[in-house]
Amino acid sequence: MQLPTLGWIGTGVMGRWMAGHLQAAGHPLVVHSRTRSKAAPLLEAGATWADTPAEVAARAEVVFTMVGLPSDVETVVLGSEGILSGSPGCRLLVDCTTSQPALAERIAEATAARGIGSVDAPVSGGDVGAREGKLVVFMGGSEAACAEAAPLVARFSRLAQRFGGPGAGQHAKMGNQIIVAGNMIGLCESLVYAARQGLDAAQLVEVVAQGAARSFAVENLGPRILKEDFAPGFFVEHFLKDLGIACEECARIGLDLPGLDLARRLYRRTADMGHGRSGTQALYLALNEGGG
Amino acid sequence: MQLPTLGWIGTGVMGRWMAGHLQAAGHPLVVHSRTRSKAAPLLEAGATWADTPAEVAARAEVVFTMVGLPSDVETVVLGSEGILSGSPGCRLLVDCTTSQPALAERIAEATAARGIGSVDAPVSGGDVGAREGKLVVFMGGSEAACAEAAPLVARFSRLAQRFGGPGAGQHAKMGNQIIVAGNMIGLCESLVYAARQGLDAAQLVEVVAQGAARSFAVENLGPRILKEDFAPGFFVEHFLKDLGIACEECARIGLDLPGLDLARRLYRRTADMGHGRSGTQALYLALNEGGG
Repeated sequence: MQLPTLGWIGTGVMGRWMAGHLQAAGHPLVVHSRTRSKAAPLLEAGATWADTPAEVAARAEVVFTMVGLPSDVETVVLGSEGILSGSPGCRLLVDCTTSQPALAERIAEATAARGIGSVDAPVSGGDVGAREGKLVVFMGGSEAACAEAAPLVARFSRLAQRFGGPGAGQHAKMGNQIIVAGNMIGLCESLVYAARQGLDAAQLVEVVAQGAARSFAVENLGPRILKEDFAPGFFVEHFLKDLGIACEECARIGLDLPGLDLARRLYRRTADMGHGRSGTQALYLALNEGGG
Repeated sequence: MQLPTLGWIGTGVMGRWMAGHLQAAGHPLVVHSRTRSKAAPLLEAGATWADTPAEVAARAEVVFTMVGLPSDVETVVLGSEGILSGSPGCRLLVDCTTSQPALAERIAEATAARGIGSVDAPVSGGDVGAREGKLVVFMGGSEAACAEAAPLVARFSRLAQRFGGPGAGQHAKMGNQIIVAGNMIGLCESLVYAARQGLDAAQLVEVVAQGAARSFAVENLGPRILKEDFAPGFFVEHFLKDLGIACEECARIGLDLPGLDLARRLYRRTADMGHGRSGTQALYLALNEGGG
């Protein structure tokens, strides 16, 4: 039996792996990406190229998007060459980009008007989770749309849950990123402290990973910082985007979260130091330069 | 063969369990605590009571201390009825209190002058880790003293490592607490966000625990916050003491760690709200009241 043809838009650090898992499961794939060369491994494995998001939507039954900024999501879905611009043949749109809850609501309305289902499905787990197909997925959308997305999403995730209607997946992802922000500040400040106090930082990471300070950040990014490996698993500029969205959502309801605000300030400084395209562990470098 | 008699001073939330593991291993125990009733389970299981730390030190071969503040450590070790005040018969002192690195150095000097070994050995893992005998221990002291302490410490720990000379265990513990501070801010802010945005916070905790936001805090304290259980695993006022020591150590070397500073400010507010004797998860209540 021929599996449904899927469309995939955005083959960056995360998307290339996620699409690869769907391809490996046997789905014919139509791909589009801003930088065509990044889609090369998928094309070599049999995916076909589409020049525009509209073309993807014309040729695929379900279209996934995994792009950078909310403005990219808007362009790819609602723009002049976007998914909804031509004659979309698809019946479901799954946006895995971490983006604005309000945009997810707007997209849900626009797709519903064309008889297309829509799910906001941002993910967590970084490049390692994407590569291993063990991401966590926060879904928002109608029960029917999420139920249809679930078996596909399962190809690149260990856990996917629906948190509510359109935008709820994005809100849950904000909840996730607020935790990550605190975890990253704690890890990077600790390693700066260790270095300045003359401790063996590698030993510290090894030991704290077994106790009450244990976290994904300690286990996965601690060793990278120790090796001075600041290559991106997750871009500083993308995390900064997420933190900006979370701050906007807090401002909208008059909620003051000082740790989130601090994280945004520190990551902005990290980006200003030229590390926007480094991994989020580059926060260490900004803290090591000193001051809040 | 009769195992060495051990002294234990301080039978609070953590100490009672740690001492219990040594007792269960067959060591005769001499105990002293500010509040005698808290030593009752150990006494009922065969431990003998001593009226002063000096008396403990006269009757035990190795003395453990697990008290509250650095000033308590100072009193218990160096005070007029302290371990070193009389005729200590012990050959080794192991202080498990999280305390000042400089005090650990002073104690190491004072004990060495009496021919007694000394180890600073603060722990991580909370009440659960203490109860299960799965703490993590950060040791500082001479190689000989740490080697002698290791098999005893192993009775209540899953991992114990020496980080260097006197005070190095305390510095490593500060590194641990700086991470915990960030993790707690992230967790508590996320749950406030979830509540305000109308998300199912229990579902959020369940899902984030599987992804890149995973931490000991999420797994162990998230569920307590959801149940509005603010009973102490680890006292706010003790954590505040730790954060104060860490801030002092940073000030001493001119290091600015803004996340640590924020955590101290927020935990001070938590204590000011009357939650000094609640668990560290009570930070949620302070953040829920708003503002940094």
